[in-house]
Amino acid sequence: MRVRKITVKLKASPYNVLIEHGLLRQVGGQIARKLRKAPSFTVVVTSSRIRQLWGEELQSGLKNAKLKFEFAEIDDGEPAKNLANVESVLRTFSRLGMDRNSLVIAFGGGVIGDSVGFAASIYMRGIRVVHVPTTLLAQVDAAIGGKTGVNLLEGKNLVGTFHQPMLVLIDPNVLKTLSEREFRAGLFEVIKCGVIRDKALFEFFEDHLASVLRRDQAALMRIISDSVKIKAKIVAADEREGGLRRILNFGHTIGHALEAESGYKKFLHGEAVGWGMLAAAKIGVSSGITPVKVAQRIAHLVSSLGSLPALTASEENILRLIQADKKTIVGVPHFILATRIGRVEITDKVKPSMIEAAIRELRESSALQSGIQS
Amino acid sequence: MRVRKITVKLKASPYNVLIEHGLLRQVGGQIARKLRKAPSFTVVVTSSRIRQLWGEELQSGLKNAKLKFEFAEIDDGEPAKNLANVESVLRTFSRLGMDRNSLVIAFGGGVIGDSVGFAASIYMRGIRVVHVPTTLLAQVDAAIGGKTGVNLLEGKNLVGTFHQPMLVLIDPNVLKTLSEREFRAGLFEVIKCGVIRDKALFEFFEDHLASVLRRDQAALMRIISDSVKIKAKIVAADEREGGLRRILNFGHTIGHALEAESGYKKFLHGEAVGWGMLAAAKIGVSSGITPVKVAQRIAHLVSSLGSLPALTASEENILRLIQADKKTIVGVPHFILATRIGRVEITDKVKPSMIEAAIRELRESSALQSGIQS
Repeated sequence: MRVRKITVKLKASPYNVLIEHGLLRQVGGQIARKLRKAPSFTVVVTSSRIRQLWGEELQSGLKNAKLKFEFAEIDDGEPAKNLANVESVLRTFSRLGMDRNSLVIAFGGGVIGDSVGFAASIYMRGIRVVHVPTTLLAQVDAAIGGKTGVNLLEGKNLVGTFHQPMLVLIDPNVLKTLSEREFRAGLFEVIKCGVIRDKALFEFFEDHLASVLRRDQAALMRIISDSVKIKAKIVAADEREGGLRRILNFGHTIGHALEAESGYKKFLHGEAVGWGMLAAAKIGVSSGITPVKVAQRIAHLVSSLGSLPALTASEENILRLIQADKKTIVGVPHFILATRIGRVEITDKVKPSMIEAAIRELRESSALQSGIQS
Repeated sequence: MRVRKITVKLKASPYNVLIEHGLLRQVGGQIARKLRKAPSFTVVVTSSRIRQLWGEELQSGLKNAKLKFEFAEIDDGEPAKNLANVESVLRTFSRLGMDRNSLVIAFGGGVIGDSVGFAASIYMRGIRVVHVPTTLLAQVDAAIGGKTGVNLLEGKNLVGTFHQPMLVLIDPNVLKTLSEREFRAGLFEVIKCGVIRDKALFEFFEDHLASVLRRDQAALMRIISDSVKIKAKIVAADEREGGLRRILNFGHTIGHALEAESGYKKFLHGEAVGWGMLAAAKIGVSSGITPVKVAQRIAHLVSSLGSLPALTASEENILRLIQADKKTIVGVPHFILATRIGRVEITDKVKPSMIEAAIRELRESSALQSGIQS
């Protein structure tokens, strides 16, 4: 299978996303090809698990390219995505003697990409970063677009920067060792891409569910590259989330609130987005924006990925957290709702009662489902 | 005296620096004039001391302009310039319900400007900030140019962003309550401006030392506005410190190392820069870049501001810390050295032995001076 190259066409700093099975061994070579002058030093920040599984392969390529490098390990769970851990990464950079010509490779899932990208963006007021995402979620979403950030106790991703990577290198092979739960969580972001912008991708997913779930090479290549293309286009049109880019937050308003409500411990990000899309489908119908059939199709595809961790949050808590969300402007929450598969609109017309009803219904069906399963 | 307006002519986001005695009462009006739409909320971050002394005046103007605002207090000493305190500012922003249309006013000295500017730059990936600097150092240097940041234990300002303010409002009246030590510390940055770029300012300072030291209104206006003009020009030519802007670091290579070596407790930043300029004068002579007479003139003006806190650091520690400095590229420290008053050049030709000799000589003369005083 040939390499897919997708360019994120930002005016100031365009960059490529390369996708290929086995690309891990070429990371060093791709970096060397991109730079006239080798970085003074390279730090690969990763988790101990990813390093054990895939560190060897990445390392061989870095050695071939004659890069001076070290590995640094950090926790990669959502609770670890905080400023204290960013500080410890920054102190590691300093102790390793990193300077403005050094390079950071963020080698891991979304938490590592977001927090290491953030660290790179604020170390000496910004040094270069290459993303080598290792989860499906990071490959199709988090690693592209330059958003970095960490959580506060008050809410998710409340702190961060825009810091575009120099290069994003995606090797779908690494998904072989991804847990079933993590893999499925990433698929929710693929569904999101279909809903907001790409009917063909949504329908491919509906029609090839089995091949996707068995991680068939061709199916993976299709869903990853299509999702990356959508994100690349949206980001190039709106780097700083002034307008269009907000549609990427379909399912995220309530998703983020659910994550915050459970202390970032219960749901994987993709799972929270799964619940969020179910809620957005319901809210879309009750606000008259989403046709019932469209909502059903979204709910059906989301549900076909299996059951999600139980939703037990109260309406009050969710409403309060939505108020603290970045998407809330001057106290009015903004929702992204589907008008059909492949099209969404941004609205500030959602009433609290619609949000409450959606949360209540989902909580009740979640309780019912747990009851059936136990 | 009429308002001085100096524009920092950045392509993407030009902004004005206004200087006027009594400007504090107009802060609200100036913000309102600048914005078509009022900010959703405004937080004034300041120290308890500045709030006591000048909060009333600022507040009256904010009320007149009908801004919704709160004050938030933080520590303003150099040891407080760390990520933990930035996190507490960010959590305050969140608890006050700040969103992307909110505004931050950094009302204080350099520590407050740098760390609050940093917090504003990373809160929700960047919200607007207005600087109202209250120390001479912040008025002539720190508040202009968009550099934000905090320290790591490993070194000063190792973490930060470029985040340009919307407006910088300078009221020289607030210097009336500045301690003699703080005031003199700020004057070292004025001397720096003269050395790197403005012979006339340097000579004004030599000739009007007494009026400057008694904080004469006209003298203050002259040294502040001339320093701001120099900084504004340099920043406009090189926003991200790719080249020219580095000349602003005259005296800072060793200055920063001295601050770090003493745990940011012993020297005010300006005082460390005072020592740094004395060292740069010596190193300039030993490396053949600075004529002896130029070095003497710099040393004489620096010394005319009175004695500095004792320099006791070892050569070894200073050399090691210089290696960790942002100005060190691929292991080679870069120095800014004077060729004449008003002109400097950047060099990577300074040998460790020259740095060692300069530190040793200054330490010995410092010990001698303390001996005489005690």
